[in-house]
Amino acid sequence: MQKDSNKSVVLLSGGLDSTILLHYIVKVLKKNVTAVIFDYGQRHSRETTVAFKHALNLNVDWRKIDAQFIGNITSSTSVLTNTEKEVPHIKDVVGLAQPPTYVPMRNLMFLSIAAAVAESVSANTIYYGAAEIDTHSGHWDCSLEFLNYINKILNLNRENKISVEAPFITFSKEVIIQEGIKLNVDFTQTHTCYKGEIVACGTCSSCSSRIQGFLSAGVKDPIPYNIEIPWN
Amino acid sequence: MQKDSNKSVVLLSGGLDSTILLHYIVKVLKKNVTAVIFDYGQRHSRETTVAFKHALNLNVDWRKIDAQFIGNITSSTSVLTNTEKEVPHIKDVVGLAQPPTYVPMRNLMFLSIAAAVAESVSANTIYYGAAEIDTHSGHWDCSLEFLNYINKILNLNRENKISVEAPFITFSKEVIIQEGIKLNVDFTQTHTCYKGEIVACGTCSSCSSRIQGFLSAGVKDPIPYNIEIPWN
Repeated sequence: MQKDSNKSVVLLSGGLDSTILLHYIVKVLKKNVTAVIFDYGQRHSRETTVAFKHALNLNVDWRKIDAQFIGNITSSTSVLTNTEKEVPHIKDVVGLAQPPTYVPMRNLMFLSIAAAVAESVSANTIYYGAAEIDTHSGHWDCSLEFLNYINKILNLNRENKISVEAPFITFSKEVIIQEGIKLNVDFTQTHTCYKGEIVACGTCSSCSSRIQGFLSAGVKDPIPYNIEIPWN
Repeated sequence: MQKDSNKSVVLLSGGLDSTILLHYIVKVLKKNVTAVIFDYGQRHSRETTVAFKHALNLNVDWRKIDAQFIGNITSSTSVLTNTEKEVPHIKDVVGLAQPPTYVPMRNLMFLSIAAAVAESVSANTIYYGAAEIDTHSGHWDCSLEFLNYINKILNLNRENKISVEAPFITFSKEVIIQEGIKLNVDFTQTHTCYKGEIVACGTCSSCSSRIQGFLSAGVKDPIPYNIEIPWN
């Protein structure tokens, strides 16, 4: 198959970062995108529903990957794939090397599978929504070193040199949100809360970094929260 | 969870190399093993049936991973996951950088998933049956460089340092077969042929390297072949 330099794969969760990234890749870089969306037994599977809306609205190709095995494998240790465990309050996870919401090897699996999609559709780039805060909140698999080694691995491929790019990896949540505003992204159609409800808890680590980002950007987050947020 | 230094994961396909490796890890290294077996839409899915027999006979824990999505993703390019395409004769693939039997990113996906299993069961080592011939027959994902970078990635994990070891990566097929004989492995219960039939074709690249290995070892392969092999 002929390699198309405009063809790329975007890892799309339906969260804030990957959704804004998708809009950036389509609207600014004008790439021909295949969005890869994972159903992995996550308790916040609502994220995939909103992810689809963006893929459909932007008229991009998509692949939904049925990766329930990830939930089966990781439910012994991760609260994100085991609804019998409780999602911790942000105050109980600050500073942990790996919080209970960490899903073992999830991002390595996601990128490996995205690379298989890329090689199969002859794309040469995978876009990955890792952001600066991720690596400071327990996610070694969002770090620059991780990105570097993944690229070293993919560069060993003898025919298809695919690279992973993470344009937001050094960006704060505030900067990413400002990018989203510029790109006219509908933030009501993004899902962040680990608990998975349509009304966000506002107290899990994921909600917490989203709220901080909007507060820093001086913008009210349009989604509903279960707690009072001092927007003004 | 407490890490158990004796706990390991073995990638088990049911082929010659990984089966002999499993016997080696259990009988010689005396590790507490979880065997990981993949159902990925491979045309030679018979390999998983024989893989199970060894896991059960050796009384090791196992996980079967339902990874049909690999077949869905890769069937556009790989004959191994698309039964409408033909498995090529060895003479048509010698020297190709990546033969039509190459499955995009398969081993990277397998190792990522095996690493998730390892982290979830608190194992510290993954054993991988890559052999010397693999890297010379189109499999960049069986090379020493690949192994090196995978280990660099896994070493970034902040809590669970898991390593991948490939004890046979510099071994010829002949040496691996001799190891299997020493370990009393039942070769009739291994599957190698890409075509997937119980009577091996003898002409695909996978059969070819197996036959060459037995010939070099001066031993008759006990499985049935569809062609005459000059064993004596």
